[in-house]
Amino acid sequence: MFTGLSAFPLTPVTGSGIDTTAYARLVSRLAAAGVDSIGALGSTGSYPYLTRAQRAEAAKIAVDAAAGTPVLVGIGATATSEVLALAEDAQNAGAAAVLLAPVSYQPLTDDEVFGLYEDVTRELSLPLCVYDNPRTTHFQFSDELHGRIAALPNVGSIKIPGVPADAKARVDALRARILDTVTIGISGDAVAAEGLAAGCDVWYSVLGGLFPDAARAVMRDAAESERLRPLWDLFARHGSIRVVAAAATHLGLIGERVLPRPLRELDGAARREVIDTLRQLNL
Amino acid sequence: MFTGLSAFPLTPVTGSGIDTTAYARLVSRLAAAGVDSIGALGSTGSYPYLTRAQRAEAAKIAVDAAAGTPVLVGIGATATSEVLALAEDAQNAGAAAVLLAPVSYQPLTDDEVFGLYEDVTRELSLPLCVYDNPRTTHFQFSDELHGRIAALPNVGSIKIPGVPADAKARVDALRARILDTVTIGISGDAVAAEGLAAGCDVWYSVLGGLFPDAARAVMRDAAESERLRPLWDLFARHGSIRVVAAAATHLGLIGERVLPRPLRELDGAARREVIDTLRQLNL
Repeated sequence: MFTGLSAFPLTPVTGSGIDTTAYARLVSRLAAAGVDSIGALGSTGSYPYLTRAQRAEAAKIAVDAAAGTPVLVGIGATATSEVLALAEDAQNAGAAAVLLAPVSYQPLTDDEVFGLYEDVTRELSLPLCVYDNPRTTHFQFSDELHGRIAALPNVGSIKIPGVPADAKARVDALRARILDTVTIGISGDAVAAEGLAAGCDVWYSVLGGLFPDAARAVMRDAAESERLRPLWDLFARHGSIRVVAAAATHLGLIGERVLPRPLRELDGAARREVIDTLRQLNL
Repeated sequence: MFTGLSAFPLTPVTGSGIDTTAYARLVSRLAAAGVDSIGALGSTGSYPYLTRAQRAEAAKIAVDAAAGTPVLVGIGATATSEVLALAEDAQNAGAAAVLLAPVSYQPLTDDEVFGLYEDVTRELSLPLCVYDNPRTTHFQFSDELHGRIAALPNVGSIKIPGVPADAKARVDALRARILDTVTIGISGDAVAAEGLAAGCDVWYSVLGGLFPDAARAVMRDAAESERLRPLWDLFARHGSIRVVAAAATHLGLIGERVLPRPLRELDGAARREVIDTLRQLNL
């Protein structure tokens, strides 16, 4: 299940909770577009801002709306006890796999992070994707640690952040540490083409969560990624979640208020810039 | 209430939740020692690892065990909606004040952090302490932002992290931005003496959460802080929460398993080093 295009939609959150209608619409659009999997409750899906009950609700909606497309559900939380509860909820909702980042408050040691994955995979009956995202977790995986974790039962994939200029060396170094059965997935949309060219098996994609056809165009032809540079620049400037939120609102797929507070939607000038960029890129 | 020694105890968390007996013991010891306030559910109190129900329970235990000593309750969470719920729970538990850090997952903008404090203080009937801790929140306050937030209703104190070598200049620069009614509190125990000498009004203290008399000795005589340097070095090496957990276990105040997973207690060599240091320092 951890290959191809994995599309990560927003979870629209208004003042009164999840906009369930809009959320189902976002997910079913992706299934209809034929993405390989759907990443519900990823970072773009605002998992760390939702209660356990809201996350269980969102997982169910996503699985229903995905209509057979495999759904990967984010189960990250600061406390291992909460992660275990979320794993159970994801399983009950019909998730095909789970996604787990070492969400931190106290900076974590390597042994603590290994212990987290050990404790969770011991209880798990679904495949797990290790989510490496230092921008939000502030934890830096070494390849040695990735190797230890990838050898745990049920680990099926590693979602890595952007790759450096020498993407091939980066992917090869990680590949040398892990079992053949574990895939490597690129996130950081701006360097996805480079990651895929360097041998990544899957793209865990924010772009694909709203514009699946545009993501597939990038997968076919790396030049498409170059063409989308103005969008990547906006992602870097405002955070991709704020940019895709503005885009989804502009497309009429979700309402005006869509991000969980304290996050704020882009205002005036920034929003106009997003809209102009979408037009310019025919998105 | 935001002056003097504010002592931040651990919240002992075992495999089955909060060890309520041990927690009440830790808090009542501090009240008996005559600290000026007790910081329940600070970073040392593991607030981000507990469920809403556990935090409400801990707040009630702390207020009871404090027997009249004012209790400051941490209400930080990633989502504003959760912070508001926690503020209500703290209020119902009898907290004298609340402590709020801009806990983040997506990196926050200044306007988002201001919006968080605006949304929370609007609903609040208790004084609030702004908790500035970039080590755990990864958010950097500017003094300009501190000034805007300090002007909101109910803001009574700012808990700053360590001070630089020129502590006086640091404290004066912040003081110039905020109302006279807002106190400045130092955390980062290793530089507390410097912070207090530079004009901080209160010490938000990890040391004081377990060794209140030793903390008061530091407040009376800055040379005491120099004497405790081996302890500060351990704090820097392992994180103060892991060191005070090992110390409290060694003193027989709490059990062997006390930190919420994925955090781990210090093992063999590190633990012996803590015990040796306590002996050497007569703690």
